[in-house]
Amino acid sequence: MEGTQRGLLLVLSAPSGGGKGTVLKEMFAQDGNLRLSVSATTRPPRPGEVDGQQYYFLSQEEFEQRIASGGMLEYAQYVGHYYGTPRAPVEKWLDEGRDVVLEIEVQGGQQVKKLCPGCVSVFLMPPSMEVLESRLRGRGTEEDAVVRRRLEKAGEEIPHAAQYDYIVYNDRLEDAVADLQAILRAEKRKLERNRDCIERVLSTC
Amino acid sequence: MEGTQRGLLLVLSAPSGGGKGTVLKEMFAQDGNLRLSVSATTRPPRPGEVDGQQYYFLSQEEFEQRIASGGMLEYAQYVGHYYGTPRAPVEKWLDEGRDVVLEIEVQGGQQVKKLCPGCVSVFLMPPSMEVLESRLRGRGTEEDAVVRRRLEKAGEEIPHAAQYDYIVYNDRLEDAVADLQAILRAEKRKLERNRDCIERVLSTC
Repeated sequence: MEGTQRGLLLVLSAPSGGGKGTVLKEMFAQDGNLRLSVSATTRPPRPGEVDGQQYYFLSQEEFEQRIASGGMLEYAQYVGHYYGTPRAPVEKWLDEGRDVVLEIEVQGGQQVKKLCPGCVSVFLMPPSMEVLESRLRGRGTEEDAVVRRRLEKAGEEIPHAAQYDYIVYNDRLEDAVADLQAILRAEKRKLERNRDCIERVLSTC
Repeated sequence: MEGTQRGLLLVLSAPSGGGKGTVLKEMFAQDGNLRLSVSATTRPPRPGEVDGQQYYFLSQEEFEQRIASGGMLEYAQYVGHYYGTPRAPVEKWLDEGRDVVLEIEVQGGQQVKKLCPGCVSVFLMPPSMEVLESRLRGRGTEEDAVVRRRLEKAGEEIPHAAQYDYIVYNDRLEDAVADLQAILRAEKRKLERNRDCIERVLSTC
């Protein structure tokens, strides 16, 4: 009835310790139609890292050419290296009807929204700063100073939630996952993605 | 974490024979938090009809007073009688955190959107005119002329789908129900309904 509807680009951000990894793991376990965008970087691969898995490893020239040709959905520089999202694999998946998740810092999220106005952006919100702190401490391995720094960073990131389309609370894992699934499902029923169906149904008279 | 979030007002329209009744029955069977808005009318009750169940039965004066005082979300006149949606019970349910369904003609739907900009409107779309026709004929009791008239009316109503927020295909019942449930769930996570949470989470430092 609908043919292959183009997939959705889901931009997902959360503050450090916000539990994004756990939520995504569960999403991918439940939804075979979902794909995770792989970032590109100019930093050298670490032992065990495979090109196209953790990152696409590019030279600085390659990366800058891609920027120049509009081949990066977003990018940033961090300690002397580029990090970004190659556009081509994302577009390919979307054309195939896959939904694609872009896990991204709040700064990158703003760039994507400009380049892909059709994307859906979700901020994964910790239920409270106390919970966030206890999650960060729960990792056990972090020094107090590191936890403080991450909390401070989270405090700067959370106000950016006001630039996202949706806010999902990461309180109970199953609720957060169900919320994200509902958002994907509902967005596909939005008028602007279904205008053509009106003529199509009428033409079947 | 969220307190009692105000419920959602779901405005649902479908052409005649669009299967709205079946979909709603299944929605209500699955979701105890959902309420169905009861219309008011000035037409006299038929045998067996109970005030507050099929309709609220009002005198013409009562109905016109309610219109004048803003007590009707929408109304229309039909063969000499008023039909409309009383605002008070809807508001009460929404305040209690219930979601309320307003089953409504496409004309009424436009009025509700003006009066309740926060409502969510869904047009239930038949998969094709052929399917609609076979559903109308499937009832068995209708004469050919009646079926033709209903199809013609549906043909006039379907272009109004372009004024709704979402279009849900009524092809497979379980898909349509799941779409509507996803829309309710996703809408509750929209930024504009969760702006206050940003300050609230930050204040828990």
